Amino acid sequence: MMLSASPGLPKGEKEQQEAIEHIDEVQNEIDRLNEQASEEILKVEQKYNKLCQPFFQKRSELIAKIPNFWVTTFVNHPQVSALLGEEDEEALHYLTRVEVTEFKDIKSGYRIDFYFDENPYFENKVLSKEFHLNESGDLSSKSTEIKWKSGKDLTKRSSQTQNKASRKRQHEEPESFFTWFTDHSDAGADELGEVIKDDIWPNPLQYYLNDDEEEEGLEDIDEEGDEDEGEEDDDEGEGEEGEEDEGEDD
Amino acid sequence: MMLSASPGLPKGEKEQQEAIEHIDEVQNEIDRLNEQASEEILKVEQKYNKLCQPFFQKRSELIAKIPNFWVTTFVNHPQVSALLGEEDEEALHYLTRVEVTEFKDIKSGYRIDFYFDENPYFENKVLSKEFHLNESGDLSSKSTEIKWKSGKDLTKRSSQTQNKASRKRQHEEPESFFTWFTDHSDAGADELGEVIKDDIWPNPLQYYLNDDEEEEGLEDIDEEGDEDEGEEDDDEGEGEEGEEDEGEDD
Repeated sequence: MMLSASPGLPKGEKEQQEAIEHIDEVQNEIDRLNEQASEEILKVEQKYNKLCQPFFQKRSELIAKIPNFWVTTFVNHPQVSALLGEEDEEALHYLTRVEVTEFKDIKSGYRIDFYFDENPYFENKVLSKEFHLNESGDLSSKSTEIKWKSGKDLTKRSSQTQNKASRKRQHEEPESFFTWFTDHSDAGADELGEVIKDDIWPNPLQYYLNDDEEEEGLEDIDEEGDEDEGEEDDDEGEGEEGEEDEGEDD
Repeated sequence: MMLSASPGLPKGEKEQQEAIEHIDEVQNEIDRLNEQASEEILKVEQKYNKLCQPFFQKRSELIAKIPNFWVTTFVNHPQVSALLGEEDEEALHYLTRVEVTEFKDIKSGYRIDFYFDENPYFENKVLSKEFHLNESGDLSSKSTEIKWKSGKDLTKRSSQTQNKASRKRQHEEPESFFTWFTDHSDAGADELGEVIKDDIWPNPLQYYLNDDEEEEGLEDIDEEGDEDEGEEDDDEGEGEEGEEDEGEDD
């Protein structure tokens, strides 16, 4: 901020003007320190992101041993299940591996990879969607193009039967889960991307096991309990999930 | 999470059960690392909070040289101005100093102190409101009791004329700004506290100068520069609070 002194002003005003200039200088120091803090915090996040990698790797290998881990996890997650049509669920039975990769500087974006077994729906082995923060601070996204097998394009079946979880919701989503791979209209508010990165990826097992419901028995799979999970999205960062899980495990 | 092996299960299920147990162990490692990350980040925040103190101090001294700095700042802030009745504004002309203090561990809460000159409204020299995070993770608040001078209790004048800024809004707030000091009903969502701590305190000068309005040309002293500064408030650092807000909104 450049504030030029105004020598023509009356004395009181001149003093005030000078005080404002000094405040501005002090503010610049505060801003500089805050930038340094952000950089240091980023380094901590990068360090722990790296330390977590072998565990994420190991976890993925173990998850691959459990048939239908990911489709179960998605169905158990209230926000994701709302996006799933019946045929989406069938296709997701072939999903064997999900990977979230934060780009090296974390700030600049992330990618989600979905690995599929050979399946009747599309040719791809991997479907990816990635989010990039550009210089102007906006997030943009791009995805693998899905090579649908003949007559199997789920994104062109808006009339496909919605599953029960989805019907219950107020906002029916007639579209397929897979439209997510073609929708780049509002990457900055990509709910599914954020849910997977910030809510499921930190601890997919809890959704697979559906062990968030403390009180609930039996069939009632995702009504109330999952609402609490929304809170995990919040700030403390990665730590938060850990803390909450401990509570639940007791 | 305690998952006991189930020796009676068929082989496939037993393997899956074991895989789940291993995922759980790996997850515990991930959680542990995330907790460590949170602790390190907190230390960085504490360090920079301390480094900023002398600058905050200096800034407060300089601000005190500018008559009506704080009332102008509040009037220029859209959310705060909406809470100000005419008489509130008059009383706030006696406000000389505002201080935000984050408690030593930052996580546990903060206090806002308002220093007033001798004034016709109340006896107090300082009005404070503080927010404490208790063990259950809820925020509670408490405040100085305002010793109103006779007939001057602004919180008992619900009919006081609202200023223009306030009238314009959809939700008219018939209450006084000073009711904030008596309202402890929902400390976790104390909008004014959060606005002062996260929005005004990081850079009050920009509101005093009113240089946020891009369209309002002419006198505006610094246009673009400060916009970037807004971004510093984001998640990486002190910004954590910002994220929390989002969570609560969900």
